[in-house]
Amino acid sequence: MVRPEVSVLRLGHRVDRDERATMHVLLASRALSVSEVIYSGQRDANLEKRIQGVVDRWGGPFEVTYERNWRSIIQNWKESSVVCHLTMYGININECLHKVPKEKPVLVLVGSQKVHKDAFQLADYNIAVGNQPHSEIAALAIFLDRLFEGKGLKTEFEKGRMRVAPREKGKKVIFGVL
Amino acid sequence: MVRPEVSVLRLGHRVDRDERATMHVLLASRALSVSEVIYSGQRDANLEKRIQGVVDRWGGPFEVTYERNWRSIIQNWKESSVVCHLTMYGININECLHKVPKEKPVLVLVGSQKVHKDAFQLADYNIAVGNQPHSEIAALAIFLDRLFEGKGLKTEFEKGRMRVAPREKGKKVIFGVL
Repeated sequence: MVRPEVSVLRLGHRVDRDERATMHVLLASRALSVSEVIYSGQRDANLEKRIQGVVDRWGGPFEVTYERNWRSIIQNWKESSVVCHLTMYGININECLHKVPKEKPVLVLVGSQKVHKDAFQLADYNIAVGNQPHSEIAALAIFLDRLFEGKGLKTEFEKGRMRVAPREKGKKVIFGVL
Repeated sequence: MVRPEVSVLRLGHRVDRDERATMHVLLASRALSVSEVIYSGQRDANLEKRIQGVVDRWGGPFEVTYERNWRSIIQNWKESSVVCHLTMYGININECLHKVPKEKPVLVLVGSQKVHKDAFQLADYNIAVGNQPHSEIAALAIFLDRLFEGKGLKTEFEKGRMRVAPREKGKKVIFGVL
């Protein structure tokens, strides 16, 4: 792997309203070599159950944990890690990604509809994946792909019961403990 | 620009159920230099109104059109373009993106929950942005970012009334016709 551990903190999750978008954040994170997502906002048992189902079937390691106090999470992480907040209002990724230190773990902040101004202040870098209205899921995916220098798309997971046999046409899934 | 026009075809949109996910597909496409998205499934006046609001405020060109018959869209495009279908069951992007001809326009198929097998057959390339369960929004974003060789994040839009003044902390938006 190109750099140490990367974790994601999803801010301001709302039950029902955000379930699908946060699920996309989780799936994108898992597919791109992130093994831990923390979320704050409202606790969502259904979301946790759904992602656990994906991990049971397709493998891990991948942990999702809930934390009410997102400010203290960021403050704790800042002691040893770099905190990157993805926002359309920040510095364009093309101009600042190279500044993120390579030897430190990274905590990526992903907002939902409205992000508190403290997130902007607490972050080490406010990074815009394009300074345009965007999808936070798309922004996260591009940020992680570039952060891992194109090597983040993970192919080997542990303890899954299913995996895809890639095909030019159609679908093939192989079952069995790996 | 690194290559000719790229358009996106969003398959199987469902009113209400998919509005937010399709909106993410539209925003990611626009931010990544796509100027046309076609969608099929159910027609959605609210979705069209919301994206038009974004284009009015932030600029274009960016067109969203509805087409009922997605098969004929693909068949028409195939005559002059390359059709790339993003699916977790396809060939890993790391192994096949270089095969997509650089001199032709590209139509990118983005599915929703369940994609008809004809889409797999009609596509020139079935491409997996990782062979794992994933977010179609994340997959589209990474595909476009890589297709445009990292130059797809668009900074100049026409006729918008707003733009971001990038900042290290906080938010700043500038108003006025560009």
